[in-house]
Amino acid sequence: MASNPPFKQEPHKLLVIPGPIEVADDVLYANAHPSMSHTSPDFIKVFGDCIRMIRTVLYSPNSQPFLIAGSGTLGWDQVASNLVQPGENVLVLNSGYFGDSFTDCLQTYGAHVDQVQAKLGEAVQPSELEAALQGKSYKLVTITHVDTSTGVLSDAKALCETVKRVSPNTLVALDGVCSVASEEIHQEEWGIDVVLTATQKGLGTPPGLSIVNASQAAMKAFHERSTPPGSYYASWKRWLPIMQAYEAGRASYFATPPVNLVYAFHASLSQITKGTPSLQERFQQHREASKRIKDTAEALGLEQVAVDSKFAANGMTALYFPVGLSASDIVPKMAEKDVTIAAGLHKDIKERYFRIGHMGISVVDKARGDIDKVLDALTEVVKKALATQKS
Amino acid sequence: MASNPPFKQEPHKLLVIPGPIEVADDVLYANAHPSMSHTSPDFIKVFGDCIRMIRTVLYSPNSQPFLIAGSGTLGWDQVASNLVQPGENVLVLNSGYFGDSFTDCLQTYGAHVDQVQAKLGEAVQPSELEAALQGKSYKLVTITHVDTSTGVLSDAKALCETVKRVSPNTLVALDGVCSVASEEIHQEEWGIDVVLTATQKGLGTPPGLSIVNASQAAMKAFHERSTPPGSYYASWKRWLPIMQAYEAGRASYFATPPVNLVYAFHASLSQITKGTPSLQERFQQHREASKRIKDTAEALGLEQVAVDSKFAANGMTALYFPVGLSASDIVPKMAEKDVTIAAGLHKDIKERYFRIGHMGISVVDKARGDIDKVLDALTEVVKKALATQKS
Repeated sequence: MASNPPFKQEPHKLLVIPGPIEVADDVLYANAHPSMSHTSPDFIKVFGDCIRMIRTVLYSPNSQPFLIAGSGTLGWDQVASNLVQPGENVLVLNSGYFGDSFTDCLQTYGAHVDQVQAKLGEAVQPSELEAALQGKSYKLVTITHVDTSTGVLSDAKALCETVKRVSPNTLVALDGVCSVASEEIHQEEWGIDVVLTATQKGLGTPPGLSIVNASQAAMKAFHERSTPPGSYYASWKRWLPIMQAYEAGRASYFATPPVNLVYAFHASLSQITKGTPSLQERFQQHREASKRIKDTAEALGLEQVAVDSKFAANGMTALYFPVGLSASDIVPKMAEKDVTIAAGLHKDIKERYFRIGHMGISVVDKARGDIDKVLDALTEVVKKALATQKS
Repeated sequence: MASNPPFKQEPHKLLVIPGPIEVADDVLYANAHPSMSHTSPDFIKVFGDCIRMIRTVLYSPNSQPFLIAGSGTLGWDQVASNLVQPGENVLVLNSGYFGDSFTDCLQTYGAHVDQVQAKLGEAVQPSELEAALQGKSYKLVTITHVDTSTGVLSDAKALCETVKRVSPNTLVALDGVCSVASEEIHQEEWGIDVVLTATQKGLGTPPGLSIVNASQAAMKAFHERSTPPGSYYASWKRWLPIMQAYEAGRASYFATPPVNLVYAFHASLSQITKGTPSLQERFQQHREASKRIKDTAEALGLEQVAVDSKFAANGMTALYFPVGLSASDIVPKMAEKDVTIAAGLHKDIKERYFRIGHMGISVVDKARGDIDKVLDALTEVVKKALATQKS
């Protein structure tokens, strides 16, 4: 539904944190859709389309998507309560803040969790994963694709290859909250059993939907479990019939879906999967924008938290403050230039770095000039702060 | 933030199902707020205000509200996983579809559940509750305030009095998904320990937020539990520090809140708690609108599912089709008149009745003429269907 004249959101500071990100006018307009019944034919089609478009984004024609009202975190509960039975072993590849939290979630539902802990600024290497898999049998391995706290990227493809080669019955879950639609993910080709994500990052929609995309192998493991899922709200036993019904064009009820947000998600997914640029071009544009940000930061003397370019995400950048400077020299100064960036989050270095998100329309809608604006502001703020420091 | 000229939603069919309900233009406009950081000072204040305004709606100055991305159903998980420990006894007062489901949820987290089952169209009576409480010790009693499937209203005040008198250590949880802001609830005066609800009914906001409001006694029971909460995403251990931080004006992170929806909720709560009509007048207007609907239905020869006026909700009405008529004679005919009502949901009578919601702006913004439109359409459709049947 398009407005006439076109809907324009209010002027505001440019939001370039690693999620929520800037949302396009037509997506926000869809979020202001008149209230609709969750069982109306119009909404059923929109919901079914979202299910189908998720498969497109993740190159997973045979997967089972789940769209449930909740934060991205709810995806952890979905994985932990549906795929792991109490007492089963899970291996968490921990590359930052989010590995710790996923561990807590898995343990809540009774999993025995081991971790491979990457050094700060690094991701777990396939060789470390292989060693861990050889020592013990695991039901599931979890990977944080991009750790939002550090901007560290894991090599999902190589890690999956390792699992499939060394322990082919082990499932792989990829936390793609900060990577889906900004990093290329070929879920089926790479053999990822579950991708979990949320709407407010690369998917360009306000927050409030947990998106989980399960392989046929994951669904088989779910159906074969001998104990009921440990969660009620996150239970696939409840949600699978709902997803199947909506995709088939029928309404079915377990809990009221976030109707307006699904309309908004539909608008954004339509742009991502059917608009310009193409999905492949979109990934390329994220790589290019990321390189521009990182090159400029390097020229300014800013060091990345990711210690090597192979560990650097394409949808966000985490940067240490120059020696002698702190958050107050950078973050509020960027805000004065109407650019909202994020402070640190990782407990070990929280006061020593900041984060910039570069995902979605800020990257692909070049007419907006968002990346230029970020780079100009960053350059000016850092140079001024360094000059002030010297004087 | 007000738009200039004022934002007007698209023309659409009048939505009078028992939730989601019609949403005001300014609330939808807030849902289209530019994307904001969940840690921005602007959003922190909005979130804190929502916490405070929930207390106002429920007359509970000392309660602890929780606002979490999710459907109303997530409130059951919050109650079941935070307030009940595995093996403890819970008594479910079952007045329809939602009592069955709440039972499933409680059992998922290990509760031993007994039910007092009301007859179809009735709520559990205080005397039945008293008998059950005398036979066994319960940690928790749950009440469905208004069963959305039948429009049956429970006498929350009298049931709470019974619990406090017969078993003063038993907690009371009220499922107010279909009652908050359309039925009067004095949470503290009546001694309700938890009210759980969602945004898309009397609270006049799109769906996507689970709202739970816990008494000090409930929080004490939570703090005294000897086992960790059975859910991760619904765990108050995770969320309590977040709610306390936002209310105190600080950001804190567990999972990204549904930022835009919180802006929308703020707009609706502001109207409910500070606008015209007053909260007391709002409840009175719901009673009056409900009476108009029910009187008109009766004059048309339509029988309510609620067997007595004391069991009849004020925010919705469930009506049997006249003898010889079925859903296809009424529901699509109403839609042809641009009025969307709901079909049946309760498994025992699903094909035999329909439901009308009358909550929020459709009731209190009389200039809209929504109730008149519903009554005119219903009268015309029923009379025509009956005449066609005879001829």
